[in-house]
Amino acid sequence: MTGSIRSTGSRLMTPIVKKYFLKLPHVSDEDNTPGLERVLDGLRREGIDVEAVPVSVIRKISSAFKENKFDITAVVRMAGRRELLDVEPGERLDNFGIAVDLGTTNIVCGIVDLNSGKSVGELSGTNPQTAVGEDILARIHHCLKLSEAGQPAGLDELRIAAVDAINVLAERLARDAGINANEISCACISGNTTMAHLFLGLDPYNICRAPYVPAANRFGSFGAKELGLNINPEAPVVVLPNVGSYVGGDVLAGILASGMAGRDGISILVDVGTNAEIIVGNRDWLVACAGAAGPALEGGVVSSGMRAAPGAIDRITIDESHEPSFSVIGNIAPAGICGSALIDLLSGLFRTGLIDGRGKFIPGRTERVVNTGSGPAYRVTGDIFFTEKDIENLIRTKAAMYTALTVIISEIGITFDDIESFFVAGTFGEYIAADKAVSIGMLPDIPLSKFKLLGNSSLAGASLALLDRHAVERIEKIASTITYKELNASAEFMSLYRAAMFLPHTDASLFPSAYKF
Amino acid sequence: MTGSIRSTGSRLMTPIVKKYFLKLPHVSDEDNTPGLERVLDGLRREGIDVEAVPVSVIRKISSAFKENKFDITAVVRMAGRRELLDVEPGERLDNFGIAVDLGTTNIVCGIVDLNSGKSVGELSGTNPQTAVGEDILARIHHCLKLSEAGQPAGLDELRIAAVDAINVLAERLARDAGINANEISCACISGNTTMAHLFLGLDPYNICRAPYVPAANRFGSFGAKELGLNINPEAPVVVLPNVGSYVGGDVLAGILASGMAGRDGISILVDVGTNAEIIVGNRDWLVACAGAAGPALEGGVVSSGMRAAPGAIDRITIDESHEPSFSVIGNIAPAGICGSALIDLLSGLFRTGLIDGRGKFIPGRTERVVNTGSGPAYRVTGDIFFTEKDIENLIRTKAAMYTALTVIISEIGITFDDIESFFVAGTFGEYIAADKAVSIGMLPDIPLSKFKLLGNSSLAGASLALLDRHAVERIEKIASTITYKELNASAEFMSLYRAAMFLPHTDASLFPSAYKF
Repeated sequence: MTGSIRSTGSRLMTPIVKKYFLKLPHVSDEDNTPGLERVLDGLRREGIDVEAVPVSVIRKISSAFKENKFDITAVVRMAGRRELLDVEPGERLDNFGIAVDLGTTNIVCGIVDLNSGKSVGELSGTNPQTAVGEDILARIHHCLKLSEAGQPAGLDELRIAAVDAINVLAERLARDAGINANEISCACISGNTTMAHLFLGLDPYNICRAPYVPAANRFGSFGAKELGLNINPEAPVVVLPNVGSYVGGDVLAGILASGMAGRDGISILVDVGTNAEIIVGNRDWLVACAGAAGPALEGGVVSSGMRAAPGAIDRITIDESHEPSFSVIGNIAPAGICGSALIDLLSGLFRTGLIDGRGKFIPGRTERVVNTGSGPAYRVTGDIFFTEKDIENLIRTKAAMYTALTVIISEIGITFDDIESFFVAGTFGEYIAADKAVSIGMLPDIPLSKFKLLGNSSLAGASLALLDRHAVERIEKIASTITYKELNASAEFMSLYRAAMFLPHTDASLFPSAYKF
Repeated sequence: MTGSIRSTGSRLMTPIVKKYFLKLPHVSDEDNTPGLERVLDGLRREGIDVEAVPVSVIRKISSAFKENKFDITAVVRMAGRRELLDVEPGERLDNFGIAVDLGTTNIVCGIVDLNSGKSVGELSGTNPQTAVGEDILARIHHCLKLSEAGQPAGLDELRIAAVDAINVLAERLARDAGINANEISCACISGNTTMAHLFLGLDPYNICRAPYVPAANRFGSFGAKELGLNINPEAPVVVLPNVGSYVGGDVLAGILASGMAGRDGISILVDVGTNAEIIVGNRDWLVACAGAAGPALEGGVVSSGMRAAPGAIDRITIDESHEPSFSVIGNIAPAGICGSALIDLLSGLFRTGLIDGRGKFIPGRTERVVNTGSGPAYRVTGDIFFTEKDIENLIRTKAAMYTALTVIISEIGITFDDIESFFVAGTFGEYIAADKAVSIGMLPDIPLSKFKLLGNSSLAGASLALLDRHAVERIEKIASTITYKELNASAEFMSLYRAAMFLPHTDASLFPSAYKF
């Protein structure tokens, strides 16, 4: 997840919070420096000039000073204003931060060792805001809800739901790492524009109304206690910035994690979550577009679909006798199918001749295809079926994705051959199989070596922002080079979309490799 | 109180918080800047680059943004890091700060109009910490108190007592000024080292134990909500720094208010509160000393004494027929005598021959001198008496003051003739009469024109720190030029003290003017 950082080693890492063990001289007639100044002098000798100390920390120092105990670990904020965030008795150099991918559907938290740069644990859960509605519009609408006393109540309800869910995950991650949650020294939240607004308690009203403007694009960072996060109360919590209503911090995190904004060659980054975002560009320019493409891949639209969690089938192959073999996350009994396996499945059914180019079952090929209440379906195992309706939804998704890719590169004036790297990110399955995605016509037919699988790039970017104190600055710079393109409005889009509603495509010449897989 | 600032006019004032009325363009298809950035851009056009915005303020902006309401007043912190402290709907340029003289015995709060530089109200009350003990040592001792559960409890008790008392005064001052307390945009606390520690909740343990070192000398500033002050929650609260255990922020405030640290000529500043502090010096050097001298003047030791509050006799003259005439603060029935009038009284009794040089009543001079249960006493009015015991206490106080002055200037190697200005400050009476103080041998016999009465210089300095964003920096610079001298330890001190226990002095040649008053 944080591979590029791991390799730089601790000497080159610049986490946003650092710890210093200070063995300070005791108070004596010869050295009557006050307690606070004693700590600040000690840090100055390490080259650290602290600009601010919260009163809670001065209080802790005054207690240590009373006891004349000056073997302490100072926790210092290194990004932005230098601040003494905490003092701990003795040597406590363990230093952890929490990276949060705050998705519309799922919340994924990672705990990052800020000394080694390694992720030491990861947990996810459903975003509890889904209780008021699956999509962003429903959430924004919920913010208009009033309390019985006629006061605005919906926004705070959603804010607290997200904060509580993160607290639960952070608490479990801390426990697994052998620390208390209040020892977590920093956090970074990566979410789309609406999720960031709801997390901060900002009214999202204008995000979904013309001219589609968020309340804020750059949030900065806040103290954990201000936001209700139960980690170190003074811990800086960075909320990644947006570019606008449609390009959120999660996308910027992905761009950061891919490194595409630092390259000369042109890259594409596709992030498929509840929404599909596409970024094309290099170090000089970036074009972004987004559309509702993902629900089918996150388990929301497909009958046996589920998110990539224990019990989800995440990989399937179908052999020549039409029998499936699959792997299940957590090696337990299968409960459903997650996005990466849905693509495998569609690819397998098509390749082995169980469905035609329109996604319809060809009768009489195998007894695994049965008639269910909702039409013909392929039985994967037990009562897990993949119906014709599911196939239709998945084809819609893949068609929307391919069309968006086609339109955006054509608008830019390049072709798929100009692409040097094609990054595939998403929370819908740990890793999508690029060859299968090409075989169904979802991703373009370019050399497979150009595909780079990023996994959860929103989480990876959030981790990077914890490990590199200049990352947010870089993200803000990246944000200023991004142009947003509106896609779905054009008539051309609809015509291309219809052509892409075929497996792999009505124009088979676009997918010369499709039949090799 | 803030005379020197008043005259500079608002163009030259640099308050630590300023307000800007912004008439910002509404959201439209042509201008889709987000709400927060819209406000920050508006401030940038005024030359203000904001570095931080608390989440509470971004929330307020997001609500205004939802309604597309952009005629707002921005409240900006101008000292240290530029921070957007608040936004208020419409034009609200009224801007007030609270200056606090946090004394061991009394708390005095002033509300300052940050646009005009004028004090628009002042209120005082007893420091509720006096309930656990009159003096600093008792307070420090109280901090060792544990709760029933065995947890430290005393410090927080004292902290909350002071904070609550300030909140009550601030709330009343705000109401009188026609605003809500949460519209007060900043505060400055000036107190001695122990008072500053207790206000911030810092353990004062080492202040009274060798080598007498505070937990901190420089505190910086904090958000009001962190400290429990019920003003604007994000308001910066400056706590003036100490030089050490014996020279606190109140003394530094006095030095600032006097302007002595900016002059070439040598000045003396005497601040008599519960403790008496003496500062001698100029722009290049400053020497400080302190001693317990004040209680008699603050109403704590004299039988009919009281602090300078409504009902206190603050000025008395005694005519040749030994009859008193006096003025009472608030023009109400007299309830006691405050410090300035005690000095008048001692001077008058001595000048009209009612007492001798040792402070003993000479019998048979007037029927106003009666025998009370505690010995002979002069009846001022009603049941307000000035007893021989009171006189003895007052003589101790004046002797300690004069001795300290003599010792400090002799240690520096100057004489009283080298003094260009003699500043007299103190909360024990609005203004001490310098001629009367000289006549009893409390202050040295120098030309009366050299005496400058500052009143409550701790409060005046705190007000200046609100009105001048560079004041705290100047105070810190001043602090670094101060040398503290320990006085009471020397045998010479005791011998000089005994000589000063006479009215005006055993060496009458030191007070050639004494009999002219």
